[in-house]
Amino acid sequence: MPVNLSAPRAESLHAVPGVRIGVAEAGIRKANRKDLTVFLLDEGAAVGGVFTRNRFCAAPVQVCREHLARGDIRAMVINTGNANAGTGEDGLVRARATCVAAARLLNVAPEQVLPFSTGVIMEPLPVDRIEKGLPAALADARPDHWLRAAEGIMTTDTVPKAFSRQVQVEGATVTITGISKGAGMIRPNMATMLGFLATDAQIDPRLLPELAFELAEGSFNRVTVDGDTSTNDSFIVVATNKARHPVITSLHTAAGAALKGAMLEVARQLAQAIVRDGEGATKFITVRVEGGRTAAECRQVAYAIAHSPLVKTAFFASDPNLGRILAAVGYAGIEDLDQAHIELFLDDVHVATRGGRNPSYREEDGQRVMKQSEITVRVALGRGEAFDQVWTCDFSHEYVTINADYRS
Amino acid sequence: MPVNLSAPRAESLHAVPGVRIGVAEAGIRKANRKDLTVFLLDEGAAVGGVFTRNRFCAAPVQVCREHLARGDIRAMVINTGNANAGTGEDGLVRARATCVAAARLLNVAPEQVLPFSTGVIMEPLPVDRIEKGLPAALADARPDHWLRAAEGIMTTDTVPKAFSRQVQVEGATVTITGISKGAGMIRPNMATMLGFLATDAQIDPRLLPELAFELAEGSFNRVTVDGDTSTNDSFIVVATNKARHPVITSLHTAAGAALKGAMLEVARQLAQAIVRDGEGATKFITVRVEGGRTAAECRQVAYAIAHSPLVKTAFFASDPNLGRILAAVGYAGIEDLDQAHIELFLDDVHVATRGGRNPSYREEDGQRVMKQSEITVRVALGRGEAFDQVWTCDFSHEYVTINADYRS
Repeated sequence: MPVNLSAPRAESLHAVPGVRIGVAEAGIRKANRKDLTVFLLDEGAAVGGVFTRNRFCAAPVQVCREHLARGDIRAMVINTGNANAGTGEDGLVRARATCVAAARLLNVAPEQVLPFSTGVIMEPLPVDRIEKGLPAALADARPDHWLRAAEGIMTTDTVPKAFSRQVQVEGATVTITGISKGAGMIRPNMATMLGFLATDAQIDPRLLPELAFELAEGSFNRVTVDGDTSTNDSFIVVATNKARHPVITSLHTAAGAALKGAMLEVARQLAQAIVRDGEGATKFITVRVEGGRTAAECRQVAYAIAHSPLVKTAFFASDPNLGRILAAVGYAGIEDLDQAHIELFLDDVHVATRGGRNPSYREEDGQRVMKQSEITVRVALGRGEAFDQVWTCDFSHEYVTINADYRS
Repeated sequence: MPVNLSAPRAESLHAVPGVRIGVAEAGIRKANRKDLTVFLLDEGAAVGGVFTRNRFCAAPVQVCREHLARGDIRAMVINTGNANAGTGEDGLVRARATCVAAARLLNVAPEQVLPFSTGVIMEPLPVDRIEKGLPAALADARPDHWLRAAEGIMTTDTVPKAFSRQVQVEGATVTITGISKGAGMIRPNMATMLGFLATDAQIDPRLLPELAFELAEGSFNRVTVDGDTSTNDSFIVVATNKARHPVITSLHTAAGAALKGAMLEVARQLAQAIVRDGEGATKFITVRVEGGRTAAECRQVAYAIAHSPLVKTAFFASDPNLGRILAAVGYAGIEDLDQAHIELFLDDVHVATRGGRNPSYREEDGQRVMKQSEITVRVALGRGEAFDQVWTCDFSHEYVTINADYRS
């Protein structure tokens, strides 16, 4: 059961002018499953992306990087059931074949197509099934198919993830809609498993790489489920340039910052949705670390807490066994950290002070917070002014069940 | 159920001349439990130790460091049920009070006593119970109480861990006997939760710090259960200097190297026993990484594999979902790693070659190995001559059960 997250209603997802989406059942791994999704972009769309830093990055990620560098992207093809990762040279050939097949049907060049794959690693991608499924996916293409797309890219996700909002940019109504997927192998390093965010705003195409990077930094790059960085993490931002406002030429003008802020909000919802639907998750946890010398060291401590199996199982048990959090702070790798300056809060409850138990802390107060479905852990390092935060979930029996049975 | 590990027979554990051990039930956390252990060392024993690098190191670890620097150690007091970690200044006061109480009964100085604590973090240490329990522990002291000591330091361990052997050093029979404890919060960084190794060999006292460090590096510093580095890791090496052979003045002479080799073997058995009894473990896994530029980078990759919840749950399921291992290799943090050079073996089975599936690999071969209780994962990085290895276990439902229920 995802934590305070339910499937969106199709009506709540605004269509983005310039984007059409089609979904098909191609039988890639199992029959009768929406497993092939195609995004069609009108001419003139600007696209930016960030990808996994896993050195074992999947073949489609390598092809995406090449094609994005050329620009003028017109389509994205996403399959589930197979990650096309750990597949060597043959995997690259198959990822390119996917682009060729889509390009032929769309009458564009193969370099104008971005391929994405997600699913089991180290199995050959069944390109023939993708080729056979593409005509149906294209025939299905419509602007209002965002919910279908969110369903089409699911793997171990239990709910489709899609968010949408509209903002005013210099007098024009601009739409931002996005989808994401992922529930396990989640510790994005550049981006998450798969995230797609589109707007009809007019943005100078040269800004898209920076925009994609900054949005990922504030959203997908701050979530973790199990600390396993995927081979296929991809986050794509599309601006179709259809809205009727002056072109945004910088993210630092009032209009640019406002648009970016609204896009970040949707990206964050998409990223947090992945944690809420984290494999086996029963709780949504914000880990905020402040008082560090740099944001990077705050992040390092936050991830140590967020990745600790002992901390995560304590959250699952609603057990305020909070010494486990202090232990994780201690092994986070900050060599000159002084434990005598550490403060620990659980929501409003002041648990530890000066590195030891707060004399006024009462176990029942910790217990009360631990039973909530949404909890904020706040650690103050007492050595500077920087802060950062990450979002994670607890670690339950269900996680083991899901991952011990995934392929069967 | 521990993996191919059972309780030792008391007769298999050789007494070490110069060491007596007493155990008592002090009711530190629960009644009717052996929770207080005392080691008494004859005058002339040399002692070395290595301790956790967790910045949140426990109060007794801080006191041990101070006392070891002075030398002439005559007793070690170990309690379970309470880690005296995350306890601030008050924790230091209580650790010192433990030393004072033991010193008074033994007629030595408090600085000649080393304190050790293991158990729940962030609770005040009940020193009064330790004080009341000490006379019974001292009255119990005998040279042949190694098995009782191994039982006395257990927390979530399911079997006592003790190993012993005798070797010839320049014509004299030398005894090496040790105990360890630990099952969760195990990713030692200098040493494990608690390990004690004693020999009656005659060793120049100045060699003990180096000896303790090198033994830890080849044993406790190469195991992990859950990646959580404890606040209390301590590994202590005692040489009582009772054996009748010329004093060893270097670890690099034939006699010095032979003794160190034998001690390393016992230390490794003690360290591996912790993994075999790892919380919820059903399999014992050796992760060997070779072909690296440095041993450090091999270790980095080995730990990435050994800590991956996805890899560990796949082992639990006996599912050869081996792409998860490649993904962990990829995110281990070696920035210029070339996936095209990676080879992966599961015992004798060649699973992946040049970063992709080995064409001759058959799933049933992977399945056969995955069903074993002892498995070696071997990764070749293809970029140098260095290698290293770590030992770990799988990740099961039982781990979640144990850690969600530990305090209740």
